[in-house]
Amino acid sequence: MKTLNFTDLRKSIDQNEVGREMYTLIAELYPICRSITGDGFRKTLEILRRDIPLKVYEVPSGTNVFDWVVPKEWNIKDAYIKNSKDEKIADFQKSNLHVVNYSVPVKKVVSLKELKEHLFTLPDHPNWVPYKTSYYREDWGFCLSHERFVELKDGEYEVYIDSTLEDGSLSYGEMYLQGAEEEEILISCHACHPSLANDNLSGMSLAVFLAKQIVPLEHRYSYRFLFIPGTIGAITWLALNEEKTAKIRNGLVLSGVGDNGNITYKKSRRGNAEIDRAAYHVLKNSGANCDIVDFYPYGYDERQYCSPGFNLPVGCFSRTPYGMYPEYHTSADNLDFVQPHSLGNSYFEVLSILEVLEGNCTYINMNPKCEPQLGKRGLYNSIGFNEMAMLWVLNLSDGNNTLLDIAEKAGLKFDAVFIAAKTLREHNLLKKVIT
Amino acid sequence: MKTLNFTDLRKSIDQNEVGREMYTLIAELYPICRSITGDGFRKTLEILRRDIPLKVYEVPSGTNVFDWVVPKEWNIKDAYIKNSKDEKIADFQKSNLHVVNYSVPVKKVVSLKELKEHLFTLPDHPNWVPYKTSYYREDWGFCLSHERFVELKDGEYEVYIDSTLEDGSLSYGEMYLQGAEEEEILISCHACHPSLANDNLSGMSLAVFLAKQIVPLEHRYSYRFLFIPGTIGAITWLALNEEKTAKIRNGLVLSGVGDNGNITYKKSRRGNAEIDRAAYHVLKNSGANCDIVDFYPYGYDERQYCSPGFNLPVGCFSRTPYGMYPEYHTSADNLDFVQPHSLGNSYFEVLSILEVLEGNCTYINMNPKCEPQLGKRGLYNSIGFNEMAMLWVLNLSDGNNTLLDIAEKAGLKFDAVFIAAKTLREHNLLKKVIT
Amino acid sequence: MKTLNFTDLRKSIDQNEVGREMYTLIAELYPICRSITGDGFRKTLEILRRDIPLKVYEVPSGTNVFDWVVPKEWNIKDAYIKNSKDEKIADFQKSNLHVVNYSVPVKKVVSLKELKEHLFTLPDHPNWVPYKTSYYREDWGFCLSHERFVELKDGEYEVYIDSTLEDGSLSYGEMYLQGAEEEEILISCHACHPSLANDNLSGMSLAVFLAKQIVPLEHRYSYRFLFIPGTIGAITWLALNEEKTAKIRNGLVLSGVGDNGNITYKKSRRGNAEIDRAAYHVLKNSGANCDIVDFYPYGYDERQYCSPGFNLPVGCFSRTPYGMYPEYHTSADNLDFVQPHSLGNSYFEVLSILEVLEGNCTYINMNPKCEPQLGKRGLYNSIGFNEMAMLWVLNLSDGNNTLLDIAEKAGLKFDAVFIAAKTLREHNLLKKVIT
Repeated sequence: MKTLNFTDLRKSIDQNEVGREMYTLIAELYPICRSITGDGFRKTLEILRRDIPLKVYEVPSGTNVFDWVVPKEWNIKDAYIKNSKDEKIADFQKSNLHVVNYSVPVKKVVSLKELKEHLFTLPDHPNWVPYKTSYYREDWGFCLSHERFVELKDGEYEVYIDSTLEDGSLSYGEMYLQGAEEEEILISCHACHPSLANDNLSGMSLAVFLAKQIVPLEHRYSYRFLFIPGTIGAITWLALNEEKTAKIRNGLVLSGVGDNGNITYKKSRRGNAEIDRAAYHVLKNSGANCDIVDFYPYGYDERQYCSPGFNLPVGCFSRTPYGMYPEYHTSADNLDFVQPHSLGNSYFEVLSILEVLEGNCTYINMNPKCEPQLGKRGLYNSIGFNEMAMLWVLNLSDGNNTLLDIAEKAGLKFDAVFIAAKTLREHNLLKKVIT
Repeated sequence: MKTLNFTDLRKSIDQNEVGREMYTLIAELYPICRSITGDGFRKTLEILRRDIPLKVYEVPSGTNVFDWVVPKEWNIKDAYIKNSKDEKIADFQKSNLHVVNYSVPVKKVVSLKELKEHLFTLPDHPNWVPYKTSYYREDWGFCLSHERFVELKDGEYEVYIDSTLEDGSLSYGEMYLQGAEEEEILISCHACHPSLANDNLSGMSLAVFLAKQIVPLEHRYSYRFLFIPGTIGAITWLALNEEKTAKIRNGLVLSGVGDNGNITYKKSRRGNAEIDRAAYHVLKNSGANCDIVDFYPYGYDERQYCSPGFNLPVGCFSRTPYGMYPEYHTSADNLDFVQPHSLGNSYFEVLSILEVLEGNCTYINMNPKCEPQLGKRGLYNSIGFNEMAMLWVLNLSDGNNTLLDIAEKAGLKFDAVFIAAKTLREHNLLKKVIT
Repeated sequence: MKTLNFTDLRKSIDQNEVGREMYTLIAELYPICRSITGDGFRKTLEILRRDIPLKVYEVPSGTNVFDWVVPKEWNIKDAYIKNSKDEKIADFQKSNLHVVNYSVPVKKVVSLKELKEHLFTLPDHPNWVPYKTSYYREDWGFCLSHERFVELKDGEYEVYIDSTLEDGSLSYGEMYLQGAEEEEILISCHACHPSLANDNLSGMSLAVFLAKQIVPLEHRYSYRFLFIPGTIGAITWLALNEEKTAKIRNGLVLSGVGDNGNITYKKSRRGNAEIDRAAYHVLKNSGANCDIVDFYPYGYDERQYCSPGFNLPVGCFSRTPYGMYPEYHTSADNLDFVQPHSLGNSYFEVLSILEVLEGNCTYINMNPKCEPQLGKRGLYNSIGFNEMAMLWVLNLSDGNNTLLDIAEKAGLKFDAVFIAAKTLREHNLLKKVIT
């Protein structure tokens, strides 16, 4: 029988240690050229499977998924631009960001004028390379630093992209962990970005570490981890697993959890789902500044989970949100941009949120008329018993309040209320409400 | 088929131009001695009928209307006070405010002492003449400036009021404009004050311009405009048209819309009626300071429309509210006190509120599971399409949110949300909820 | 027929005069050694019976009351500690606080070391004597000032406590006053503390004066006054009178009402019970600073009344709350600590709260369609009639608003709204809703 639970785990972890391990995984995954389909994605899943028993699914190109169609599979071997001196202006081998993701194959000589129609730069950050995609419009292009762009001289350029865009399949990884209850917690992250560290190798590494560390724990909820391509992956999973969504009681999209910014929790569309309240409680009590923001229909895959036809209780956990840092979707979102201590701290706070969800039950006071006599049970004025927490739990355990409700109303941390409830349960003063 | 709508009108109007036209009408109506009954009221309606097809109703004196009775009709030809030197101290021909409105006829010589019992002045504004009425207590009186009052010397004075107070009728004007739906918007203004420009020739002129300009528009709601004597007119109309009130879905009382103060919107008794929320949305987004105040049972005819037995969703639109400016109910509420730019701006904002009501429908997202693929419809990253507004409309169109709800939740202007909904409707991504 | 009501009483009282009378009663009760059982409690009830027709109940030791058992009865005649010079170090005759309340009998000679295990002092307030009890653990002890404690020299000490702890009974006093309705207001105070003036002779004196002055009044509610030992008394009363609790519509626990601090009202567990809203209204309009705090499951007997199995609408009225002043449960809570003007003011505000409850009915406007014509009834522009209050009452009397609701929404004092309703009722414009 498993005996460790989320509280034990949370208390035992060393944020810096975990952060360093997460960082090591990110560093390993960083060079791979991922996209929403293709071998880079598959290779990534293979690496993750060393740590967790991920099941890999392949969905054929052309499959209808709600209003969308699974696209052709994209693979790439090489790409470059050469000037007339045979110098490579942009080289896929040096950075996979140099080629527009999903570029069709091309091999020709073009004038500077024509070339420029296919080049993307960041004039405001002249030494950064942007990250661009063209998933749903067949085209080709290159990204380069603005510094290099302005140096380009008139003349002919050889452009070469050795890619394929053919029928194949969309891959995703899924890990399901059965709990004491059938109800699920969904942890989802997009895994389709190439060499971008924060967005979203950080989210993937957090999900991997969570999954790995939950396996040996005693846990109430079943857990489902998804490593999917952004947007089309969430839509594909929802379309093919619609009946499973009824079991999802709480969920988190993880992304951008490694930068130095404050933690940001974006609420589910419901706004007051249990996950929203648990995240609020944990983050407000974390001692660090954090931002709790209302749902808006933009961002990551919460857009799909929270579409009105699903309206799942899924929030988004990140540090600096989507698009709010200049390094976002550029070559500057690299291995220097993510920090082990931020990664470790994100892990710790997500674990703490799950700990609240795991422990957040509703109890009934078995002695509801007047207070029970705590003294005769050795619970009054005794060291190690938080009397106020016990009185709050007794007073509010009328079947209408979860422990999280009680913690919030009492102004106590969830942990204190949880321990008080445990003590009272052991003295037969509380009974769990079966819901 | 009519093709212009409220949005087209709102975009086309020149506030200053409209304001000047409104001012011209006010100036024409200003000299007429109106009261709650009588020929001054009828003459006023005749002038309004040049612009709009107003139907005039006559309700006989003595008609029971709820707890009230339609009073005798009052008419006046002349009135003055003469001193012993045959000088006119107060002269109805110079200003109809000099005689207390509804004064019974009198012709006699009185001492200064007796005269003073019938004189009204404003000591704090010694050169202004107050406006006084005695509708429901038969009496006579004169109003004059305090300057003149203090100069009065002992002696005899001739008082003369050539008025009649006899059975007749109460007149009011009504214009009904059929819309695509039977549900109505009520626009009501009192038209019973004599030479007072802001209170309420300004409200009347706004109502006339609205009515005139809505006639050629495509409009969803039916519109009912009332030009009535204050209090007794609203009570009379409600008593005689009780069955019509069920169709009133929104309404505005217009009064005092020409002074230089901020716009004030006083909510309906319901507090969160659609009109209240539309007015809030428009005024808060207008860029100008404005005051949104809760309902209170005093003021104008919203008192009657919002009595508990009716509780109609009718708010009151004004600039500086009732009684909150010193010129209120004095000779200083004259043609200098109202300003064309204020009149035009009031017109613009009322029109904008009606535009919101006209467009405020509820839609259902026809593709509620995950986002629809906007890209394949040319709606993604395309110039001229407000993507965020479309995503908000799609996400919140679950049948529980009107477009106004969506605009408020999204922090967008109604216009943006309305256009997004129109685009989505044209692509069959939204369907209107029939209510 | 009784003709004076709560309003008449409230208007007639002189706070200082009442405060001085309350103080005189406190001074008389102060020397008595009370406990949760025993003759000191009985003697106290006897003194109260001079003023009010209190019925005294005796509940035998050993009676089961919910999770508790009525304890043995404790009585004490004398107690002291003598040093080797035959000097009394602590003397029950000088202050009953010197002996730990509920100490078992003892008579022996002990070393200083052993003695110290039974001594309690307040190092932070070296010249105060603490108040200690040992109700549910059989032990003995003495309390003394820290000044005296530190002077104790090695040697032998004679300790003597002439007490008894035997089967007997728990006493409490109850006064029930029948009103026009069966529904009750509960006034409860603990009466078990020995020589402590604020906690809770002040609460007892307030309850006595209220009871005495309500007897001759016309009153709608029935009133039940309880003078009980803290905790065990409330539990005993609730256990033996459970069926009576269904009639309790509002209640107040009175304690600590004589110090110089602001008034504090602690809401019932319901949070928005009528008593909570009445207390809020009265105290916020009192002109003095006051604190309105949410319920928490600690403090006085509201802990029992508001346990989840009862959840009675009972708040707690005090000045500085429980434990928030250093004199709390020490010899410094003496006759200098309570002030006649604070006592009188507490009395006045409690009376004002009850006045609101007595008058807080729901009415229906008998003329709900449009306003009634107040003028023809002499109620318009007439001296002595608060027109705005009448219009508010008429507008909101739709059966959904009590007079207190109306006062809060109108921003008027309850009194003004109550008088307006009375006037309107006399003119048959309002009818009381029978609930």
